[in-house]
Amino acid sequence: MTYDIALLPGDGIGVEVVDAALPILEDAAERDGFSVETTRYDWGSERYLREGAMMPDDAIETLEGYDAILLGAVGHPDIPDHVTLRGMMLPIRKAFDQQVCKRPSVLFEGVESPLRGYDGEDIDFVVFRENTEGEYSDAGGHEHRGYPHEVAVQTAIYTRQGTEAVVREAFEAAAEREGHLTNVTKSNAQAHGMVFWDQIVEEVAEEYPDVTVERLLVDAASMDLVRRPDEFDVVVASNLFGDILTDLGAIVSGSMGLAPSANINVEGHSPSMFEPVHGSAPDITGEGVANPLATVLSVSMLFDHLGEDDAAAALWDAVADQLADDGAPRTPDLGGESGTEAVVSDLRTRL
Amino acid sequence: MTYDIALLPGDGIGVEVVDAALPILEDAAERDGFSVETTRYDWGSERYLREGAMMPDDAIETLEGYDAILLGAVGHPDIPDHVTLRGMMLPIRKAFDQQVCKRPSVLFEGVESPLRGYDGEDIDFVVFRENTEGEYSDAGGHEHRGYPHEVAVQTAIYTRQGTEAVVREAFEAAAEREGHLTNVTKSNAQAHGMVFWDQIVEEVAEEYPDVTVERLLVDAASMDLVRRPDEFDVVVASNLFGDILTDLGAIVSGSMGLAPSANINVEGHSPSMFEPVHGSAPDITGEGVANPLATVLSVSMLFDHLGEDDAAAALWDAVADQLADDGAPRTPDLGGESGTEAVVSDLRTRL
Ligand SMILES: CC(C)[C@H](C(=O)O)[C@@H](O)C(=O)O
Ligand SMILES: CC(C)[C@H](C(=O)O)[C@@H](O)C(=O)O
Repeated sequence: MTYDIALLPGDGIGVEVVDAALPILEDAAERDGFSVETTRYDWGSERYLREGAMMPDDAIETLEGYDAILLGAVGHPDIPDHVTLRGMMLPIRKAFDQQVCKRPSVLFEGVESPLRGYDGEDIDFVVFRENTEGEYSDAGGHEHRGYPHEVAVQTAIYTRQGTEAVVREAFEAAAEREGHLTNVTKSNAQAHGMVFWDQIVEEVAEEYPDVTVERLLVDAASMDLVRRPDEFDVVVASNLFGDILTDLGAIVSGSMGLAPSANINVEGHSPSMFEPVHGSAPDITGEGVANPLATVLSVSMLFDHLGEDDAAAALWDAVADQLADDGAPRTPDLGGESGTEAVVSDLRTRL
Repeated sequence: MTYDIALLPGDGIGVEVVDAALPILEDAAERDGFSVETTRYDWGSERYLREGAMMPDDAIETLEGYDAILLGAVGHPDIPDHVTLRGMMLPIRKAFDQQVCKRPSVLFEGVESPLRGYDGEDIDFVVFRENTEGEYSDAGGHEHRGYPHEVAVQTAIYTRQGTEAVVREAFEAAAEREGHLTNVTKSNAQAHGMVFWDQIVEEVAEEYPDVTVERLLVDAASMDLVRRPDEFDVVVASNLFGDILTDLGAIVSGSMGLAPSANINVEGHSPSMFEPVHGSAPDITGEGVANPLATVLSVSMLFDHLGEDDAAAALWDAVADQLADDGAPRTPDLGGESGTEAVVSDLRTRL
């Protein structure tokens, strides 16, 4: 079996972590008797500065045939975010209908949470985030610019199809995990979109009688991720709320450098994309200290998605093993003094 | 000088904390040589269950003439939130054009933050939240119910007037504080509403050359409130983002029971409303253990708004003094075993 994987290292430390993860990806495949063919596309901000576009016109056709995509990070200090993101990451999520974004938050043994009283393995939940519509919809307008009656509107669009897709995935995961799903909305203040979302959750809940459903408002949920993160199992939320909750989840689990994610095409007709949650981090780019573990965990999710469960578990376990080992190298975001290379070399010995 | 204050204790512990704060409010006024006449309106969920409406039809006219309003909390386990809130709290914010919501987050000496390494007085920032429009606008729709092509939309409306009002208040506060303002948006994903918001901030910034402005995306800002809350001074944000950030602010500062807020009519033609950020807490209602301090701090903000700076400072200092005192009574949310009454009696001795 050979899988074709497109590599989009992107910008800044995105390039460093994808390069670093590559040998581990190959080790894991070899170990489990399948092979991976990777093709690297140097799309991103440097290309934008050179040629005026983050990706070529036929980028989507080019990626279409791959079994999966591994993305590093997108973002450049000299280019507005909405240009880089709307030029690369967001169009891929949309074009391949990656409606579901899955982001686990795990406090690994050996990692310190910024929260008092939380130690290794106390926190373990996964957020399912709607990924292609909702509050990120490109709908709205802006009138009377510069006048006292100037007004801008931003419209969130929630479809049954998109909402059901993410809600169903979340229930599936909850049924396989602890059977507890937290639905996060803001229905008390957003009577149109969010009340509809709650209805979909209620409908789908009927198909999963063994899953208990808790409803939380996004303000309370944000607090609870700080106050009682150990009590979450599966969380389902809209695009914007999922964005906020997963960043909070990453930080309470010890480091943004450990947060992986999967952008999933649920029907499987187009490739899914895997990426660390962190950004391009221009402040540390080039110093060789970027934490590669979020990318390694994203590769684990990629293998899991392809059905290569053993390779997925091997990568995840190697990371957990390294983190639990006091003597192992760590990057500065985890309080260590090692560089990317040292972490990767050590990790390869643990596979 | 006599001020007329309308009391709206509302539901659950709202009633308990307003009752508890009343004698302290009177002490502080007496101490500073002014007087306060309070009128209490028993509006809220009990009224709704009895008469079908949270407030009478002429509620707004009734409140119109007061110098300020003190609200306890709104919310009842048997009534959906959108009914109670849209029946009482939100219409008052709107009717009296309380466009600016001001919420300080202070980690008082003697209070433990859930964040490792943060001790008394390390955290001290204030959030200015747009309070009557934005993501809470009652705009949107829902079509094709039950069909595969069902869709709901929720529209956020940002006016120049509303946005400028809150941004200007935030800059004023920053100029008087540390001169640092953090503008929180999601402009990389919401190109209509949030990009407009950023423009208003840039415009107003020109009038305050001594204030430095930092831009943060809401996901990063949420993380940073956990990662480096001590670095914030003044934060300005939309209705929804302000809602999330102030709940996070309350929790990192040790307890929801210590978070006060002001809903301000900037032009002063209608009353402003002061309220603790916490809700009606049905789980502890009737047990006499509700923390009255968020309400006392809200009364401090009320006095400050009326120009009674000394009384405002006296109340704030009494709370700080009590919290810093190891031997003073504390409610359970702060790790103590005392009730509301004991906290209030002790507080009166510190005025
Ligand atoms: C960069 C940004 C558009 C993106 C998002 O909000 O989706 C990022 O924050 C993420 O979470 O992947
Ligand atoms: C109850 C709810 C509508 C309200 C809000 O979101 O404004 C509350 O959370 C608050 O922060 O005052």
